[in-house]
Amino acid sequence: MGKRVYSFGGGAAEGSADMKNLLGGKGAGLAEMSNLGVPVSAGFTITTEVCTEYYKNKKAFPAGLDKDVEAALKKVEKVMGSVFGDSDNPLLVSVRSGARVSMPGMMDTVLNLGLNDSTIKGIIKKTGNERFAWDSYRRFIQMYGDIVMGLKPEHKDEIDPFEEVMDKLKHTKGYKSDLELTVDDLKELVTKFKALIKTKIKKNFPDDPKEQLWGAIGAVFGSWNNERAILYRKMNGFDDSWGTAVTVQSMVFGNMGDQCATGVAFTRDPSTGEKSFYGEYLINAQGEDVVAGIRTPQQVTVKGSLKWAKENGVSEKERKEKFPSLEEYMPKAYKQLQDVYMKLEKHYKDMQDIEFTIQNEQLWMLQTRSGKRTATAAVNIAVDMVNEKLIDKKTAVLRVDPASLDQLLHPTFDPKAKKEVIAKGLPASPGAATGKVVFNAEDADEWTQKGEKVILVRIETSPEDLKGMNAAQGILTARGGMTSHAAVVARGMGKCCVSGCGALEIDYVSRTFKVGSLVVKEGDFISLDGSTGDIMLGKVQTVDAKLSGNFSTIMSWADEFKKLTVRTNADTPHDAEVAKKFGAQGIGLCRTEHMFFEGDRIKAVREMILANNVEERKKALKKLLPMQKKDFLGILKAMEGYGVTIRLLDPPLHEFVPHDEANQQEMAKELNKTIEEVKAKVEALHEFNPMLGHRGCRLGITYPEITEMQAQAIFEAACELKAKGVDVKPEVMVPLVGTVKEFEAQRDLIVAVAEKVMAQKKIKVDYQVGTMIEIPRACVVADEIAAQAEFFSFGTNDLTQMTFGYSRDDAGVFLPEYVDKKILPNDPFRVIDRGGVGQLVKMAVEKGKSARKNLKLGICGEHGGDPSSVEFCHIVGLDYVSCSPFRVPIARLAAAHAAILNTESKKK
Amino acid sequence: MGKRVYSFGGGAAEGSADMKNLLGGKGAGLAEMSNLGVPVSAGFTITTEVCTEYYKNKKAFPAGLDKDVEAALKKVEKVMGSVFGDSDNPLLVSVRSGARVSMPGMMDTVLNLGLNDSTIKGIIKKTGNERFAWDSYRRFIQMYGDIVMGLKPEHKDEIDPFEEVMDKLKHTKGYKSDLELTVDDLKELVTKFKALIKTKIKKNFPDDPKEQLWGAIGAVFGSWNNERAILYRKMNGFDDSWGTAVTVQSMVFGNMGDQCATGVAFTRDPSTGEKSFYGEYLINAQGEDVVAGIRTPQQVTVKGSLKWAKENGVSEKERKEKFPSLEEYMPKAYKQLQDVYMKLEKHYKDMQDIEFTIQNEQLWMLQTRSGKRTATAAVNIAVDMVNEKLIDKKTAVLRVDPASLDQLLHPTFDPKAKKEVIAKGLPASPGAATGKVVFNAEDADEWTQKGEKVILVRIETSPEDLKGMNAAQGILTARGGMTSHAAVVARGMGKCCVSGCGALEIDYVSRTFKVGSLVVKEGDFISLDGSTGDIMLGKVQTVDAKLSGNFSTIMSWADEFKKLTVRTNADTPHDAEVAKKFGAQGIGLCRTEHMFFEGDRIKAVREMILANNVEERKKALKKLLPMQKKDFLGILKAMEGYGVTIRLLDPPLHEFVPHDEANQQEMAKELNKTIEEVKAKVEALHEFNPMLGHRGCRLGITYPEITEMQAQAIFEAACELKAKGVDVKPEVMVPLVGTVKEFEAQRDLIVAVAEKVMAQKKIKVDYQVGTMIEIPRACVVADEIAAQAEFFSFGTNDLTQMTFGYSRDDAGVFLPEYVDKKILPNDPFRVIDRGGVGQLVKMAVEKGKSARKNLKLGICGEHGGDPSSVEFCHIVGLDYVSCSPFRVPIARLAAAHAAILNTESKKK
Repeated sequence: MGKRVYSFGGGAAEGSADMKNLLGGKGAGLAEMSNLGVPVSAGFTITTEVCTEYYKNKKAFPAGLDKDVEAALKKVEKVMGSVFGDSDNPLLVSVRSGARVSMPGMMDTVLNLGLNDSTIKGIIKKTGNERFAWDSYRRFIQMYGDIVMGLKPEHKDEIDPFEEVMDKLKHTKGYKSDLELTVDDLKELVTKFKALIKTKIKKNFPDDPKEQLWGAIGAVFGSWNNERAILYRKMNGFDDSWGTAVTVQSMVFGNMGDQCATGVAFTRDPSTGEKSFYGEYLINAQGEDVVAGIRTPQQVTVKGSLKWAKENGVSEKERKEKFPSLEEYMPKAYKQLQDVYMKLEKHYKDMQDIEFTIQNEQLWMLQTRSGKRTATAAVNIAVDMVNEKLIDKKTAVLRVDPASLDQLLHPTFDPKAKKEVIAKGLPASPGAATGKVVFNAEDADEWTQKGEKVILVRIETSPEDLKGMNAAQGILTARGGMTSHAAVVARGMGKCCVSGCGALEIDYVSRTFKVGSLVVKEGDFISLDGSTGDIMLGKVQTVDAKLSGNFSTIMSWADEFKKLTVRTNADTPHDAEVAKKFGAQGIGLCRTEHMFFEGDRIKAVREMILANNVEERKKALKKLLPMQKKDFLGILKAMEGYGVTIRLLDPPLHEFVPHDEANQQEMAKELNKTIEEVKAKVEALHEFNPMLGHRGCRLGITYPEITEMQAQAIFEAACELKAKGVDVKPEVMVPLVGTVKEFEAQRDLIVAVAEKVMAQKKIKVDYQVGTMIEIPRACVVADEIAAQAEFFSFGTNDLTQMTFGYSRDDAGVFLPEYVDKKILPNDPFRVIDRGGVGQLVKMAVEKGKSARKNLKLGICGEHGGDPSSVEFCHIVGLDYVSCSPFRVPIARLAAAHAAILNTESKKK
Repeated sequence: MGKRVYSFGGGAAEGSADMKNLLGGKGAGLAEMSNLGVPVSAGFTITTEVCTEYYKNKKAFPAGLDKDVEAALKKVEKVMGSVFGDSDNPLLVSVRSGARVSMPGMMDTVLNLGLNDSTIKGIIKKTGNERFAWDSYRRFIQMYGDIVMGLKPEHKDEIDPFEEVMDKLKHTKGYKSDLELTVDDLKELVTKFKALIKTKIKKNFPDDPKEQLWGAIGAVFGSWNNERAILYRKMNGFDDSWGTAVTVQSMVFGNMGDQCATGVAFTRDPSTGEKSFYGEYLINAQGEDVVAGIRTPQQVTVKGSLKWAKENGVSEKERKEKFPSLEEYMPKAYKQLQDVYMKLEKHYKDMQDIEFTIQNEQLWMLQTRSGKRTATAAVNIAVDMVNEKLIDKKTAVLRVDPASLDQLLHPTFDPKAKKEVIAKGLPASPGAATGKVVFNAEDADEWTQKGEKVILVRIETSPEDLKGMNAAQGILTARGGMTSHAAVVARGMGKCCVSGCGALEIDYVSRTFKVGSLVVKEGDFISLDGSTGDIMLGKVQTVDAKLSGNFSTIMSWADEFKKLTVRTNADTPHDAEVAKKFGAQGIGLCRTEHMFFEGDRIKAVREMILANNVEERKKALKKLLPMQKKDFLGILKAMEGYGVTIRLLDPPLHEFVPHDEANQQEMAKELNKTIEEVKAKVEALHEFNPMLGHRGCRLGITYPEITEMQAQAIFEAACELKAKGVDVKPEVMVPLVGTVKEFEAQRDLIVAVAEKVMAQKKIKVDYQVGTMIEIPRACVVADEIAAQAEFFSFGTNDLTQMTFGYSRDDAGVFLPEYVDKKILPNDPFRVIDRGGVGQLVKMAVEKGKSARKNLKLGICGEHGGDPSSVEFCHIVGLDYVSCSPFRVPIARLAAAHAAILNTESKKK
């Protein structure tokens, strides 16, 4: 056990920014700021290791910690010139959590600690503000009672017992606002709050500040394992073993009077990335008032304030009087803040999210950290900072989270679509969302599970709403700014959010909201534009995303670093074109069966299926030939110059026949068969486990004429294009191979057809014949297969199904529970299972390469678009990944991350 | 390329018995016999390597072969004192196939080669038998025309063109039998046969004996790849690359007159193993007349003859006159034969199957080889030979094919059952068979595929009938002896056969057979007793097999050598008892779900399934508890002293609910639910791929209360038995584990229940908790799992399904075709796939042992009873195999074979 307590303040600190794992993000940030000479009120941080030890000790503090804390407290007293528990010149402290990564609002905080009937006298004396002192005291007791002594109701719908007492008093007195409470009222509340605690839990509220302090430290450690913190970690893949640090810091007050304020700011715009200082503040308030979104905050800068006024229809007169910017209201403090933010950004070389308090016009920094940002902002900031020579290209590439690109790539509302904008809120998190209105998180979750798309509409959100926010398409709140809970969380999720739309009158009981006279009911469709703040009635058409120049810049930088080629899964020329625009270099998976369903083709397909012998089957296949050929002409043309992997027919034949009487009747009529024949065939095709049935190359082996027709279509198309000067590179892929003989049999057929067609057309086409590796056995005998096959494409969807023995269609019954119970770290269909499926892939790569040195290796399962899985593909040495068109940029960026991070880790 | 041609004869030979792979069984046998001084007519053998070269050369003879053959022919001429192609003293030869293993009747043979219009004069002169000479000549042309010149009809239902010509002549002349043909008739046939060849294939019949010889050699090589030979090899797992040798041997004639004969004999009884010379012969006949079963043969020994007469109701007078034994008819030749057979058996130390010809009272041996025998005979001969000090125990154990034990272990007809014996044939191959009568092989195959059990009834069988014989339950023929095609093949297959039942009048056209006035139609049930020759009307009750003392002896010797323990798969105390009698030492798989279906239990199970919450489910489970406990009391008691592996609930829950309306109605009524509730539940339980669905430990994890109930039942039973002094060793097995966390979660539940029950019952029971390895992922992470699990039991049924991606329920559509097309060597559900599934098993064993040195390893898939798979288990280092009760002796013997063969191969 190393050093347990790290002091900071007075222009120096024992810790530093690189000690996040030990001191938490907050503790490390405060230490670093102290070192930088930024104004930070003194304090100390108890390490995350102590938290771990605390849990190991069955929630007892390790021996000796008391002495370390005592010593650190002495230092704080010295720097701040006040004494903890002193009735004349008391030191008050905050006790806050701090994990190595930010978990906003997940854990507990206690403020104003150190107040009691004696120290309050000192506070009154120091501030000359008796009302502030008593209000702080009653707030402290309430907070301590709720959090440390456990009186906070478990369900947020239940009313807080302290609030109840206060509401009663206000009612008796006829007050409408807390501000009307007098000093005597507050004194009465202090007494009543203490009595409430005594009644409820048979314990006295602790008067001893030391006892208060240890209680709060224990409560913060305890909050590491509260339900919502655990859920948040699970959603973000954070490790439960990390633990939280506890930072005890001397209080500074933003709520001591009108020359006091508190605020949150970003060194650049977190939504657009614009290089413009952006922040919100509240006069005479405590920090949590900003975050909780209870009061609508004012803008820090004049620029921001003017824009806000314009957007909200506030006159310049009203703005200046009621909502002045900090720049105008406290120019001296603003100047301090400006100096600090520039110093911090320059130091950290990243956009910072800072919290500050102004106590009697003196600025105090509470926190700095890398600011969360939208994908647009991430891209723009990264590119700008390279241009500003703050960071290098590699750092810039790493600054953009590949998964976040989803936000940029997804459609936005069609500007030409008819929109009925009924209100406007803050553009808190970009995106376009359409769904049915629901009014609470549980409904959002339940409706979504039923397949509905929903918009979660709340007065404001809180950490308890996380699950529902995650489920919803978008979030709309009536209260709260751009840094409110809803806004911060939604941006983190990459989810569309419009916050603080004051025009909304939400009625949870009748499950409606009103905008003026318009009533929107639960279940009605609305649409949200997270980039404008528009709230629209009904469903609105969307259009494809348009990508900025900075986006292209980042992607081109990514391409400089990545080793993996990125291909796309595309079955149509249109998809191929889209993917090419997104940077796809080839098609990794073209599924030919999708072509079987279109228009008239299904008739010919069914004719083939109903055929009684090879001749009849060949006759039907002959009808399909020109159609398939047309498909291949289009796709090979669209991907000119790049490899196009065409997978032969894969699904079981019963997917092509109708299973209901009416359609069977029609099919019989169309094909001149009796209904009995059709039914008998459909019956014969039925399988108990179609996933493990007569499909893939098993079809090609029992019906070689299907493979022949497909090969003929491919090579006729390729030859005809080549004759016209188009550079075609067809790669024929045999699916579901489990034994080398299967592959050989199919390869022989394909090669025979290819040679025949090329001889007929008198032209040579470069082509390859390879296989999909999607059956566990194929991995085991990959050396045998590679001796025959020119490429492997890992079909990790099916490989995951068979390696785990999970049917993707059925696993929904237990898979979520498996992830909940931590039997699996992730859904293995989303993130590749490195320990199991990944080991088989690795084995196949090694065995394959041992038999054919230049074996081409790729992946075409959906994992090809998942950043973690892309990293795995890089590590294991694949040549390319293939994913859906919209995920191509994600894969490119993830491939760059993988290359950079894995080279660096190798260097170490 | 080594020596191509090996000569033999005249008391010496270039080859020997250990050159079977090169000279074929026949060639090696003739060489060895020559070396032994046994009378063998001189000849030479062209090696199997030449056959391989012949195919490699696109069916051309390798250069230089002609010279080698020429030289060898010279040697033969010298030994035999006659000259090939000489018109005065001609040498005639036979040209026969010979693979390294016997493939009776599968390949082609040409006899009497060397005859032409000139050499026939020499034959007439030498034999003084003009009719014999011309008959030999017409036979030769017919055989040569059919086989070498390709006139044999492809379908056996078509009439042979030579037969047609002969039938016409006989009809014109009014002959009833071939014997009435005069010398002139035969001369006319020779002319007509030659003309027929000229007409049909525009080629002259080759007069040049050398040309005849090369044509025949090519035809024999060619017959290696005829359809029935390929089928036979596939059925027996023989390698296509082996090729056949060709043996050219000087002809000796059994059909030159009444002092000539030909026969087949076994040095011991091939049916019972009795140490008694046993054989059949025909006077004035060629060898194929015996094998083809056209004439009913006479017995070689007096003892055999007397027995035959008794069985066939032939008087002693008639027997002596018409059917004397060889012993009586040609005592001198019999004496020679007796000396030879004893010499051969002593030399080969195994029961021999010999072929001989007597030409003018001089014995010539044509062939010797290890005789095929029934399982009973194999056991008895092996034990007898040890007692006679001919072989050691190890050899004796290896002499019995484990798979053949099936014959001994299967039920026989209940001696007390009412039997309506309608006729009696020869007890050609033991066993008890009941089925519907069919009259051709195609029907036998088709009806069986439809799920019918059939008896194939034929006048005689031929190699074309193989597939149908394999499909049928039993085979009944009207003609042919104990060494007829039907008899030999059926014994090889371990299939019940009654042959040579002359009482049968079979009419293929009306699809009936008559026995006297009784008419049996296609589709009627009959029963065959292969050990007595009884043919019975209808279905006859069977009883369990009774095992002989020799069987116990062999099994006890096997146990001395085997390293693997053999357990059984048993779900009931009765099965456990049966298996114990067969030598099972423990239960490797007790499936608890089978217990869920019995009687009233299904109601409680359904109540559990329909439960809306944990409490309801627990209530239903409480009802099941005493029932499960009762099962475990019985099974643990029955297997006292041995380990009993109990697998927790495995199948998906929908297997326990009714899927038809009526039963759903009943279920709803019984459980006080609405039909809608029942339907909704059934619907909710439906899975697309139940094999990969919510089953195995996935159930135990989502419904831990089921695991708890099962554990409670197991441990309460174990504790109560132990308290009574019963030695119990429960091993709780968690099914379908794919991740170590699944196992840990279930293990923790089981251990908690075990400890609780043992504390309550105040008794300690030794128990283990382990898992089934049946998911590919489990093999990959076997080290992680073994760190937690005390044993692994390989569930190779499911492991094969998932490793190949084959649903066993659906694979029937393509699996037979896969085996036919040689994409797979075997059905992998029958014989473990060593290259794929086996590699995963090996990986799991190695990884498992690396994490837990004393990890107990077993197999409980159906492979546990397959000899090849048992060998694999031995090689890979498992501790035990577990199989169905009736396969326990097979597994024991296979385990002994594996231990002996793999130790010996290691020694090399």
